[in-house]
Amino acid sequence: MNQTEFGPLLVAYDDVAGAAQRILGHARRTPVLTSATVDERTGAQVFFKCENFQRMGAFKFRGAYNALSLLSPDEKRRGVLAYSSGNHAQAVALAGRMLGVKPVIVMPLDAPPVKIEATRGYGAEVVLYDKHKVDREAFARELAESRGLAVIPPFDHPHVVAGQGTAAKELIEEAGGLDYLLVCCGGGGLLSGCAIAAHALSPGCKTIGVEPALGDDATRSFRTRTLQSCHNPETIADGARTHSMGKVTFPLVMRYVSDMLTVDDTELLRTMFWLWERMKIVVEPTGALAAAALLEGKLAAKGARVGVIISGGNVDLRWAAQQLR
Amino acid sequence: MNQTEFGPLLVAYDDVAGAAQRILGHARRTPVLTSATVDERTGAQVFFKCENFQRMGAFKFRGAYNALSLLSPDEKRRGVLAYSSGNHAQAVALAGRMLGVKPVIVMPLDAPPVKIEATRGYGAEVVLYDKHKVDREAFARELAESRGLAVIPPFDHPHVVAGQGTAAKELIEEAGGLDYLLVCCGGGGLLSGCAIAAHALSPGCKTIGVEPALGDDATRSFRTRTLQSCHNPETIADGARTHSMGKVTFPLVMRYVSDMLTVDDTELLRTMFWLWERMKIVVEPTGALAAAALLEGKLAAKGARVGVIISGGNVDLRWAAQQLR
Repeated sequence: MNQTEFGPLLVAYDDVAGAAQRILGHARRTPVLTSATVDERTGAQVFFKCENFQRMGAFKFRGAYNALSLLSPDEKRRGVLAYSSGNHAQAVALAGRMLGVKPVIVMPLDAPPVKIEATRGYGAEVVLYDKHKVDREAFARELAESRGLAVIPPFDHPHVVAGQGTAAKELIEEAGGLDYLLVCCGGGGLLSGCAIAAHALSPGCKTIGVEPALGDDATRSFRTRTLQSCHNPETIADGARTHSMGKVTFPLVMRYVSDMLTVDDTELLRTMFWLWERMKIVVEPTGALAAAALLEGKLAAKGARVGVIISGGNVDLRWAAQQLR
Repeated sequence: MNQTEFGPLLVAYDDVAGAAQRILGHARRTPVLTSATVDERTGAQVFFKCENFQRMGAFKFRGAYNALSLLSPDEKRRGVLAYSSGNHAQAVALAGRMLGVKPVIVMPLDAPPVKIEATRGYGAEVVLYDKHKVDREAFARELAESRGLAVIPPFDHPHVVAGQGTAAKELIEEAGGLDYLLVCCGGGGLLSGCAIAAHALSPGCKTIGVEPALGDDATRSFRTRTLQSCHNPETIADGARTHSMGKVTFPLVMRYVSDMLTVDDTELLRTMFWLWERMKIVVEPTGALAAAALLEGKLAAKGARVGVIISGGNVDLRWAAQQLR
C-alpha cells in the first residue's frame, strides 16, 4: 500500500510524530515570527518558522538528532560518519556530542578552514580527502566500512526526513491551519518531511517546494515525473546545490508536494537582505528561498494563511558584505 | 514620600503595569532568545529580550504608544509632535497612525533621506529645520505651541518611561527571576523603566545600565550623584548620544539602578557582529550595548541568571558592511 509508481513511501506522519518526541528538549523549539510589513506587502497572513535559530543554525539538527537516536546501541558505540562541508556535518557532529556517539566527518581538503574548525569545535574527527583524486561517496563508504561506522546521509534516509518534518509540525501547532507551506528544496529532505506533516495536520494545505533557478533538478523532476539531476549548479544557495533528490525523498515529494517554484539568485539575494533589514533575522541564501518565492510574487497568496520555513542562518558576514557593494 | 535628594520619583511599578495593559495587542510581545553558546562562553544563564523584533524595530514603540494612549481626547484630536531623527520619531509616527493621532516629526534638513522617507512612510508630517541656524528644542516648542500639539519627548516623560519598562516586565514573566538585568542607557528611559519593573518583579535583581565609553554621562552622573552631560559624543551607538539624563529619569536611575558599565566602540562592534553571526539576529550598535558588557566580560556573571535587553535592530546594512572590511 505504500508503493507508488515513483518508489515506496518510506516515511509516514507517525514517524514525524515519533521524531518530535525524540528531539523534545534537545532540539530548540524555534520561534514563529510574523511581520505586519510582510502581511501588508503580500496581502497574506504569513508565519515564518525560524530554523536559523535552531541549534548550530539550521534545521539539519532535527534530522541528524533523530537519526542518531534511532541507531542500535552497538551502532552508537561504534560511531557515525557524515560527508558534507555544510550544515549537515555540523548537525551530525553536535548531535553526536549530545548523544555520546563519536562523529567522523569527511570533508574536502579545500573546505573553508573556518568550517573545518567549526566542525572540530563540535567535537568531531574531520577526515580530509582530495576531491580531485577520489570520489567522495566511495571514500566515505570505504572509511565507514573499515571502521564499522553508520553513515548518516544528508537527506535520503527515512529517519532524517522524519526529523526534518518536525519543523512543519511545530509551525502548524503554533500558527494553526495553513493554506500554503513554502519550503526550500535541495535533496528534498526538509521538503518531503514538512509536506508529510502538513498533509496530516492541516488538510488542504498545499506544500510548495522552492529551488534556485540554477539548480532546478527537483522542479524538473516534479514536472516530468522522472528523477532529474543537475551538476554543481553555480547558485549562491549552497544548501540547494544537491545533485538530485533520492530514492527516499523523490516518491514522497511526488506524493505530498503540490507544486514547485524557482527563484533566481538576484531575487534570492534581494530577499535575504530584506529579511535582514526588515525582519532583523540573519538568514543564509538557501534559508531565504521559500521567503523569496513569496516576496517576489511567485505565488498568488492574497488572503491566504502562508507558512514559510526559514531553513538556516549560517552565512559568512564578510561574503554577505561583499554582495552589498 | 516619592521625593528624593535627586528629585521626585514620578514613575512606579503600577504605571508600568498600566502601560502593559495599554500596549497589549498593539505592541509586539517580543521573543526571549537563549543561546547554548552564550551560556557556555559566560558560565551564566542568559535571556535576551529581543526588542529588535518590536514594531518599527526598537523598544521605543512601547513608550510612544503608552504616552499617546494617555493623551486627553482633545490632545489626541490636535495631534502630537516629536523631535528626533531616530527610532523615537518612527515610534511616535507609527503609534500615531495606529491611534488615529496626527504625528508631526521635526527633523534636521540633513537627516538621511532614507530616515525622512521611512518616517513619512508611517504617515507622519515631517517638518525640516536647519540645525546650524535654529535650536531644535526651541523650534519644536514654537511649532507645537502654534499648532497646539502635545510634545512627546524621547525619554524624559513618566508615560514614556512606564511604557519602556514593559520590556523588562515581559522578560521576567517569561524567564523567571533574574540576578542581573543589563540595559543600554541613552537618556535613561528604557533603563529606569526596566529597573522599576525588575525591582518589583524580581526582588534582589541588580539592574545595570550600559553606556558607550565615549558617551558616559549617565555613568559619571551615577558615580558623582550629580547630573552630568556630554556633547555630541562620536560613538557609533547613535541611540546613546543623548546629552544627559533628564529630570524624570535621573532620580529613577539613582533609586533603582545598581551600577553602570561602559563599553568602547570596538567592543561594541565586535559584539554586534557576534550577535549577527552566532545568534542570527540583526542588532544595531546601541542595541548591542547591554550584550557587549556581558560578552566582553565587564560583569562577573558566572552562575548567575542574566537578562539582557537587545534594544533595537535598525541599522543600515551598507554602513555595517563597511565596518566589516
